[in-house]
Amino acid sequence: MQNSEEEKLIARRLKITDKKKGFIELLQQLSICDSVSEKEFEDRFQELDSLGDDHVICVIEDEISGKIIATGSVFIEKKFLRNCGKVGHIEDVVVDSSARGKQLGKKVINFLTDHARSVGCYKVILDCSVENRAFYEKCGFKPKEIQMAMYFV
Amino acid sequence: MQNSEEEKLIARRLKITDKKKGFIELLQQLSICDSVSEKEFEDRFQELDSLGDDHVICVIEDEISGKIIATGSVFIEKKFLRNCGKVGHIEDVVVDSSARGKQLGKKVINFLTDHARSVGCYKVILDCSVENRAFYEKCGFKPKEIQMAMYFV
Repeated sequence: MQNSEEEKLIARRLKITDKKKGFIELLQQLSICDSVSEKEFEDRFQELDSLGDDHVICVIEDEISGKIIATGSVFIEKKFLRNCGKVGHIEDVVVDSSARGKQLGKKVINFLTDHARSVGCYKVILDCSVENRAFYEKCGFKPKEIQMAMYFV
Repeated sequence: MQNSEEEKLIARRLKITDKKKGFIELLQQLSICDSVSEKEFEDRFQELDSLGDDHVICVIEDEISGKIIATGSVFIEKKFLRNCGKVGHIEDVVVDSSARGKQLGKKVINFLTDHARSVGCYKVILDCSVENRAFYEKCGFKPKEIQMAMYFV
């Protein structure tokens, strides 16, 4: 067997069975996320799945441990601007703290940008912290505007 | 008749008949947008309309001239994060150059943020230029991260 560890780390779309593989626990490394019930997970999964190519969640599974160790999502916004153009919005990118340094973040970003390009987006955008700017620049992104936020809760 | 000019400037959802009222020409003040054919407009309108409350385009019509003089949109992203939370993304806000100083931008933003709040979003976000930052701060937004972009065309 010649399979290296890297060859087993393939980016693919989220499956409904990935909740059992630590998908929610991985998201908890990024931001506030209490435990999500089976029912809540399935409902949201079906809701997003019904959007087809307009909302794609990428995951990388470590086939040895059976755990999801990286993820990111992209959804496609349809505009009137730019001749009824489309824009990909990348959100919720996270790599498991124990799996850093394997270029998994770049693999996720490439999967998501390739998807946005393949469905005809004229650009893909995301918001990141000052600390993560250099990573996204290496992925081919350039800084553009200021993200502004208003919290309701 | 006691109707002041301001009372006639009501924020409402985009209608399919608004193309005739200069909606596309208004967007052209914001960014690249060639003329959009009737068919293209109707197809995109129906596509967005089918998303219901998940994609809302707000317009303000000047009832005297019959022209659309301000617009902005918000779409609702559904996440697993934040306990299957929702985020409103504001895009494509523009006020006609001849109608500045009437607080129309604020009226549009209030309409869009009220919508995001009413459908249960935990936050609403947008990207803006350095020049527009003060305007959004007056609307209740705070600067958060850096927007990064990758263009395909």
